[in-house]
Amino acid sequence: MTDDGYATFADERAALNELVLKHANLEIKRFFSLDSQAYRDGALPATTKEILGLVASLVLRCDDCVSYHLGRCRDEGVTTSELVDALGVGLIVGGSITIPHLRRAMKTWMELMGEESHLAAE
Amino acid sequence: MTDDGYATFADERAALNELVLKHANLEIKRFFSLDSQAYRDGALPATTKEILGLVASLVLRCDDCVSYHLGRCRDEGVTTSELVDALGVGLIVGGSITIPHLRRAMKTWMELMGEESHLAAE
Amino acid sequence: MTDDGYATFADERAALNELVLKHANLEIKRFFSLDSQAYRDGALPATTKEILGLVASLVLRCDDCVSYHLGRCRDEGVTTSELVDALGVGLIVGGSITIPHLRRAMKTWMELMGEESHLAAE
Amino acid sequence: MTDDGYATFADERAALNELVLKHANLEIKRFFSLDSQAYRDGALPATTKEILGLVASLVLRCDDCVSYHLGRCRDEGVTTSELVDALGVGLIVGGSITIPHLRRAMKTWMELMGEESHLAAE
Amino acid sequence: MTDDGYATFADERAALNELVLKHANLEIKRFFSLDSQAYRDGALPATTKEILGLVASLVLRCDDCVSYHLGRCRDEGVTTSELVDALGVGLIVGGSITIPHLRRAMKTWMELMGEESHLAAE
Amino acid sequence: MTDDGYATFADERAALNELVLKHANLEIKRFFSLDSQAYRDGALPATTKEILGLVASLVLRCDDCVSYHLGRCRDEGVTTSELVDALGVGLIVGGSITIPHLRRAMKTWMELMGEESHLAAE
Repeated sequence: MTDDGYATFADERAALNELVLKHANLEIKRFFSLDSQAYRDGALPATTKEILGLVASLVLRCDDCVSYHLGRCRDEGVTTSELVDALGVGLIVGGSITIPHLRRAMKTWMELMGEESHLAAE
Repeated sequence: MTDDGYATFADERAALNELVLKHANLEIKRFFSLDSQAYRDGALPATTKEILGLVASLVLRCDDCVSYHLGRCRDEGVTTSELVDALGVGLIVGGSITIPHLRRAMKTWMELMGEESHLAAE
Repeated sequence: MTDDGYATFADERAALNELVLKHANLEIKRFFSLDSQAYRDGALPATTKEILGLVASLVLRCDDCVSYHLGRCRDEGVTTSELVDALGVGLIVGGSITIPHLRRAMKTWMELMGEESHLAAE
Repeated sequence: MTDDGYATFADERAALNELVLKHANLEIKRFFSLDSQAYRDGALPATTKEILGLVASLVLRCDDCVSYHLGRCRDEGVTTSELVDALGVGLIVGGSITIPHLRRAMKTWMELMGEESHLAAE
Repeated sequence: MTDDGYATFADERAALNELVLKHANLEIKRFFSLDSQAYRDGALPATTKEILGLVASLVLRCDDCVSYHLGRCRDEGVTTSELVDALGVGLIVGGSITIPHLRRAMKTWMELMGEESHLAAE
Repeated sequence: MTDDGYATFADERAALNELVLKHANLEIKRFFSLDSQAYRDGALPATTKEILGLVASLVLRCDDCVSYHLGRCRDEGVTTSELVDALGVGLIVGGSITIPHLRRAMKTWMELMGEESHLAAE
């Protein structure tokens, strides 16, 4: 995610997804559709699936994917304690190489929670 | 995991963990201890944390880690439908490169569930 | 791939794919279907797509995926010189960490080409 | 790639490559030379090799490498349909974790094709 | 690392580490503590451990981690020739996909060495 | 590495390297040559470079690469305490996902040190 905050990220993501889908072939379109379906309520609730998407994104070290799932976790009512527990599992599995992403995840989460993270340099 | 099944894997894992800890320095010992703590009940229940560990292991494509968390998911009472949902999220996030690990995960899960996987070549 | 050769790999793969699909949810089934479609003739011919799948598998270091695409490259009539060129690109992009996979790829390719690789220890 | 577009990326890349080579040891110099050779016409044409480099870069999720190969694909006359097919293979192999890179790749490609991507927020 | 140079990076890192630790659970706190311990003098001197951390960060392609270890290598008195040798090993192991990180590493190192890298575009 | 021990691994590696080089193009041959040069004494001694190769291989999770560098570390006179320190850095950087490779590394090291690892199941 850029340093411009979650709203800018979400806008850019939406605009570029539109650009991708405008030029996409059938396989890419189907993949994008499948990607939405995978996080709907099923045997596991959507909340758990979003936490799974978050931790998978953290250990694979993709800031944009982490930001997206943080937004969805907020929508699903995940608490800060639950989020921290999930990130903690990702940190142990993925090691110190995930720490820069953990730092940015916490900054974004604070923004999403509506708390000014006065500590965070910009 | 070797092709010799879950029990052989678990025995080898235990024996080699003992070997590592016999020669480990303080940092390695502390990491191993931390690795156990991270999956205990907290803000998230142990069951969810094991599913997180499983999906993180799948997208990072580590058969041994997948096998270990499958055993723990079984202990925690995860159902086959829940497991399949979790693996489905991992597959979408991680792509077709995770499929060989998904195949082996399903074979191990069937063994853990006590079902003969008559289909599976050995 | 196991050390038992391409035929054993292909049999195991087919049997375990059947096991996965027997227990799969809708997302996993759709992904498997999409995974076949992606390599069909399109703007790029199937041959090029298989070579792409091969090099992507090499740099992501998945032996089973490499073996599968080697089989498909053989079916598509890729020559050994073309294959070596493709693997060379993968080696430069992915570095020496890909060399063990390159070694096993070459052994499998020799088997697929019907040449005894008398050099290869088993 | 930075958000300043392809030209800025290409200038920075050239300047920093010069800096690296000024301080490089013999191994680094030889690797840089090898890296150019690997994409020249051989058993596979340069065009195919650039597409291979692009897809390898996408699945390994390196924006700068993707941008570089997009520029080279443009030079080699790759069409948008061919490019989309190649990115589609990368997406299926690498999963949703590659989507942020796919988005940025499409934006860069539109810039290289001389089309204003009016959709893309900046 | 952002393009604002090492000092900005170091300030942001410190501020966000404080934010993480303010909200961290026990496992995350212990991991951060362990992460400092791992680079202290032991059977291997701190200098060698920092070079190890640097090369591990390069092959895993994490700019922030590379920048951090470059700062520590400077503190430990690593010379430019030693640094280049270490980066060379990382380049051979990790391949051309590491080159964008190598470029940024060299730029940061020049800044840390107090040399204007007049070549480097900003 | 297979479970057949270091000698079998080393024999297979040599035989398959010969097979690769028999069919290699110029780029692959040059890369293999470069790969040897990178570990020779330079600004950093060969011993340090081998430890770098080992830790890079551990965090990238390649058993064959780890085994090879363990053999070279033994040749260079690295002690068990030094080795454990290096593996500890790799574990902290790379996280619990590296543990299966750490286990197999310790088993191989014990074999190389001529100690029966009575604990290790085979």
